[in-house]
Amino acid sequence: MAIFDMLPVKFSLFTSSILNTSTVVAITVFVTLLCACIVIGHLLEENRWANESITALLLGLVSGGVVLLVSGGKSSRILVFNEELFFIYLLPPIIFNAGFQVKKKQFFKNFSTILLFGIIGTIISFCLISLGAFLLFKRLGLTSLGIKDYLAVHIEHMKIVFAAAIGAIFSATDSVCTLQVLNQEETPFLYSVVFGEGVVNDATSIVLFNAVQSLDFSDIDVFTALKLLGTFLYLFCTSTALGITVGLLSAFGIKTLYFGRHSTDREVAIMMLMAYLSYMVAELLSLSGILTVFFCGIVMSHYTWHNVTESSRVTTKHSFATISFIAETFIFLYVGMDAVDIDQWKESSASAGTSLAVSSILFALVLIGRAAFVYPLANISNCIKRRDGDKIELRKQVTIWWAGLMRGAVTIALSYNQFSSSGTSSSTVYPLLITSTIIVVLFSTVVCGSVTQPLINAVMLRNAKPTTSDGTDFASLDDLRLLFLENGGSNDASGNQEAPRSSGFRLLMRYPTHTVHYLWRKFDDRFMRPVFGGRGFVPVVPGSPTGAADDQTS
Amino acid sequence: MAIFDMLPVKFSLFTSSILNTSTVVAITVFVTLLCACIVIGHLLEENRWANESITALLLGLVSGGVVLLVSGGKSSRILVFNEELFFIYLLPPIIFNAGFQVKKKQFFKNFSTILLFGIIGTIISFCLISLGAFLLFKRLGLTSLGIKDYLAVHIEHMKIVFAAAIGAIFSATDSVCTLQVLNQEETPFLYSVVFGEGVVNDATSIVLFNAVQSLDFSDIDVFTALKLLGTFLYLFCTSTALGITVGLLSAFGIKTLYFGRHSTDREVAIMMLMAYLSYMVAELLSLSGILTVFFCGIVMSHYTWHNVTESSRVTTKHSFATISFIAETFIFLYVGMDAVDIDQWKESSASAGTSLAVSSILFALVLIGRAAFVYPLANISNCIKRRDGDKIELRKQVTIWWAGLMRGAVTIALSYNQFSSSGTSSSTVYPLLITSTIIVVLFSTVVCGSVTQPLINAVMLRNAKPTTSDGTDFASLDDLRLLFLENGGSNDASGNQEAPRSSGFRLLMRYPTHTVHYLWRKFDDRFMRPVFGGRGFVPVVPGSPTGAADDQTS
Repeated sequence: MAIFDMLPVKFSLFTSSILNTSTVVAITVFVTLLCACIVIGHLLEENRWANESITALLLGLVSGGVVLLVSGGKSSRILVFNEELFFIYLLPPIIFNAGFQVKKKQFFKNFSTILLFGIIGTIISFCLISLGAFLLFKRLGLTSLGIKDYLAVHIEHMKIVFAAAIGAIFSATDSVCTLQVLNQEETPFLYSVVFGEGVVNDATSIVLFNAVQSLDFSDIDVFTALKLLGTFLYLFCTSTALGITVGLLSAFGIKTLYFGRHSTDREVAIMMLMAYLSYMVAELLSLSGILTVFFCGIVMSHYTWHNVTESSRVTTKHSFATISFIAETFIFLYVGMDAVDIDQWKESSASAGTSLAVSSILFALVLIGRAAFVYPLANISNCIKRRDGDKIELRKQVTIWWAGLMRGAVTIALSYNQFSSSGTSSSTVYPLLITSTIIVVLFSTVVCGSVTQPLINAVMLRNAKPTTSDGTDFASLDDLRLLFLENGGSNDASGNQEAPRSSGFRLLMRYPTHTVHYLWRKFDDRFMRPVFGGRGFVPVVPGSPTGAADDQTS
Repeated sequence: MAIFDMLPVKFSLFTSSILNTSTVVAITVFVTLLCACIVIGHLLEENRWANESITALLLGLVSGGVVLLVSGGKSSRILVFNEELFFIYLLPPIIFNAGFQVKKKQFFKNFSTILLFGIIGTIISFCLISLGAFLLFKRLGLTSLGIKDYLAVHIEHMKIVFAAAIGAIFSATDSVCTLQVLNQEETPFLYSVVFGEGVVNDATSIVLFNAVQSLDFSDIDVFTALKLLGTFLYLFCTSTALGITVGLLSAFGIKTLYFGRHSTDREVAIMMLMAYLSYMVAELLSLSGILTVFFCGIVMSHYTWHNVTESSRVTTKHSFATISFIAETFIFLYVGMDAVDIDQWKESSASAGTSLAVSSILFALVLIGRAAFVYPLANISNCIKRRDGDKIELRKQVTIWWAGLMRGAVTIALSYNQFSSSGTSSSTVYPLLITSTIIVVLFSTVVCGSVTQPLINAVMLRNAKPTTSDGTDFASLDDLRLLFLENGGSNDASGNQEAPRSSGFRLLMRYPTHTVHYLWRKFDDRFMRPVFGGRGFVPVVPGSPTGAADDQTS
C-alpha cells in the first residue's frame, strides 16, 4: 500500500468522504436538538411558564455542557457563532414571516405610537444607557482593564465610543424575542406596539451607530441633530419603499404571468425568492434589511398572496411560518450552546464577581432606559389621542415596558461583532463585555421569557376586553363611511384624491387613524387592487387569470 | 478623526456593515438569476425543446460571461463551487422530494429491474469506462501531461487509479438530471427505472470507489469479488433500513404526540427536520445518504403524511417540491456559471483540441458503457418476466439508454473533489480532466436535456398505451385477491404470514411482483398501519388523534 500513499491522487470520492466530518456532526447534533425542542415544546404547550425559546435555550446550555464534559473541558463549540449565518440566513425569514402574518389593521392603527417608541424611545434609551455605561467605565477605570498603552485623551475617547456601542447594542429591542413571548391573537395591541418598535428600531440603531462613528462629541449642535433626523428619514423611507416595491413587483408578476396555471411550486418559489431578494438588496444598498423585508411581507400578504392558487396560499402561509419557527428555535439553541463556550470565559480574566456586577448594571440600565421612554411617551401619545379606547392605560404601559426588556440573539451577534478578540488590541475589556452580554441575554431570556405571559394574563386579560374594543373600531368605521357618503365627497368618478374636503378634513382631525384607513381602502380598491390583485377583488377584464383562479378554488 | 482611527474599536456594527459585501452580492445575483430562470422557464413551458435546467445552465453561462467581461477577463467566479454546499444543502432535499413524490407502486413493481441496472449495470459501465480511460491515458502518454517526477511503476499505478476514478465518476447516473428530463406522469416506467437506477447507483459507486482505493489490482480473485458484494449488500441494507427507521419514527411520533392539535408548523417542521436528519446520520455512519433519504421519503409519504392535518399535507407536498425545485435550478445555474470560470481553463495548459478530444472520448465511453449494460440486462430481465406487459421492448430500451446519459452537477462535484489542484502535485492532468468533465456535462445536459423529451414523444407515446397496462395490473391484482380468497389461506386471524401455502407459492412463482405486493398490503394493513397510521386507516381506538384529524378534515 506504500505505493498508493505516494501517489498524488487524493483518495476521497463520493459523499461519505467528501464531507467534513465535523460539519456533519455539528449539523446532526443541531437537527436532533431542534427535533427535541419541538417535541418538548409541544409537551409543555399547556405550561404557561415555559415556551419553545426557553426550552431551546436550556437545551442548548445542557448540550453545550455535555460537549464540554465529553471534550474534557476543552471546548463546547460545535458550531462557532457566525454573524453571517445569523444575519443572512436566520433573521430574514423570521422578520419576513412576522410581516406576512402581522394583523395589518392593528399594526397601522398603532403606527404613530410605534414610530414614537421606535425613534424617540430608542434615542432616549440609547442616551441613558450610554451615559450609564460611561459612568460605569469611569468607576471601573478602563485602565485597570488592560488598556494601558494609550494616552489619556485616547482613553477618554475610548470610553465614549465603548459607552456608545453599549448604548446602541442594548437599546435595540430584540424583535425575535418579542415574537416568542407575545401572542398576536391574545394581545394584538401589545404585540403590534412592541414588535413594531423592534422593527423600526433597526433603522434608528443604524443611524445612531453611524453617528457614533463619525461624530465629534465635543461639537454637537442643532444642525447635527437635524442632519441625523434627515438621515433617519432617508433610511426609513427608502427601506420601506424598497420593501413595498419588491412586494408589488411580485404581486404584479404573479398576477400577469399566472404561474399557477402550470405549477404551484413556481408560485411558492418566486414568493420565497423575491422576499429574500428584498432583504439582500437592502443590505447591498446599506439600508435597513429588517424594515425592507418586513414591509415586503406586509405587501405580499395583502396583494401577492391573493393572486396565487388555493394550494399555494396554504403552502406559503404554513411554510413561511415553519421556516421562521425553525430559525427562531435554532437561534435560541445556538445562543444556549454558545454561552457555555469555555474559551470566552477563560479569556475574560476579570473575576466572576466583576462579570456579574457589570451585567447587573447593564441590565439595570436596560430596565431604566426602557422605563424612561415608555411611560412619558405613552402619556404623550394619550394626550394626542382623543378617544378613550385608543389610550394606553398604566397597566398596558407596564406590559409594554416589561415585554420589550428581553435581549437575545441580535444583542449577542452585535456584541460579538463589536467586541470579539479578533480586533487589533488584546484588551481584556472585550471578553468582559462579551461575557456580561451573555449573562444579560441568558437572564433576560429566561426571566422575562417565563414571566411575561403570566404577567400579561394577570395584568391585561383579567379586566380588559380587546375584542370589544376591536368591535367598536369596526362600528365606528362604518359610521365614518356613512358620514363620507352623506357628504357625497368621495363617490365621484374623478379618480382624484381631493374628495374629503372641508368635512373630510374635520373628520381627519377627529378620527385621524380611521380616516386614513378609510382613504387608503378607497385608494386601494380603485387603483392598487386592479393592478396588483388582492382579496376578493374581481378583475375588470373577464376571463383574467386571477378571476379564473378564484373560480377554480372557490 | 485621526484619533478614532487609532482606537482599537472596530467601527462596524449593525447588519449593513457586518455582512461581507461579496457574499451579499453573490446571493443577490443568484437569487435574481433564480427568479429569472423561473419566469423564463414558465414562459417556455409550452416549448418541448427547452426546460428549466437548460434555461438555468444557459443563463448561468451568460451571466458568468458577463461577470467575466465586467471583471476585465480576470474572474467569472461569484461563488466558488463548493462540494459541501452541494452535498449538504442542495442534494438531500432533491432526493428526499423524489422519494416523497415517487409513485410507489410503479417503483416497487420495477424494483428487480432497478436493482439489476443499478448494481450489475453500474459495474459493467464502470469496468468499460475505466478500461477505456486507461487505454486513453496510455495513448496520450500520462508522462507528457506533466507527471515526470515519478518512477515508471508509479506511473503505471497512477494510470489505473486515474482510470478507475474516471470510471467511478462517469458511470454514476445523475439522478438530479433524470428528474429534470423525465416526467413521472407521462412515462412512469421510464422514470422509475432510470431514476431508481440513479439512487441505487449511489451505494454501488461508494463500494466501487472504496474498492479502487484499497484493492491491489494484481491480485483479484473470486473471494475479493464476494467480499465486495458483501460490502455492497451491507451498505444497501443498512442505508435502506436507516431511512425506513427514521421514516417510521416520524410517523409514530407524529401519530402519538399529535402535534397538529397545537400547531401545523410543528408538524411540518418535524417532518423536514427528520428527513434531513436521516441524510446526515447516514453520512455520519459513512452509508449512502442518497439511498437513506430516498427511502425515508417513501416511508414518510406512505405513513407520516397521512397522520398530519390537511393543511400540513398541502404544505409539505408543495413546500418539499418547491425546495427541491429551487435546489435543482440553483445547481444548473451554478454549473453554468462555474463552466465559464477562466482560472480553470487557464490552468489547463493542454490545447483546446486536446480538451475536446478527451471529452469526446469520455462521452463516447459513457455512451458505450451505458449501451453495454442496458440492452443485455433488459433482455435478461425479459427472460425472467413471463407476462408480456412487463417486458422491456426495444424502444423502451433505447429510451432507458438515452435518458440515463445526462451527466450533471454530481459529476462536476465529484470531478472537482478528485482532480482539484489543491492536491499535492502540480500535475497538469488535473485541470485537463476538470475542463473535459465540464465540456461533457455541458454537452450532455444541453443535448440530452433537449432531445430526450422529443425522443420519448416520438418513440414511446406514439404506439404505447402505458395507462392501459396499468389498468391491466389492477385487474390482475383483483384476480389474485379472488384466487387467494378462494384458497381461503389468507383471511384467518392468526396474524402469521404463512398463509399463502402451496397455492400461494404457485402464485408467487407465476406473478411474483403482484403476490409480493398483495402480501405486503395485507401485512401493512394488519401490522404497520395500526401503529404508524396511513391512508384511509381508521384506528381501532376510538377518539384517537388520527381519527379526529380525519373527521375534521374530511
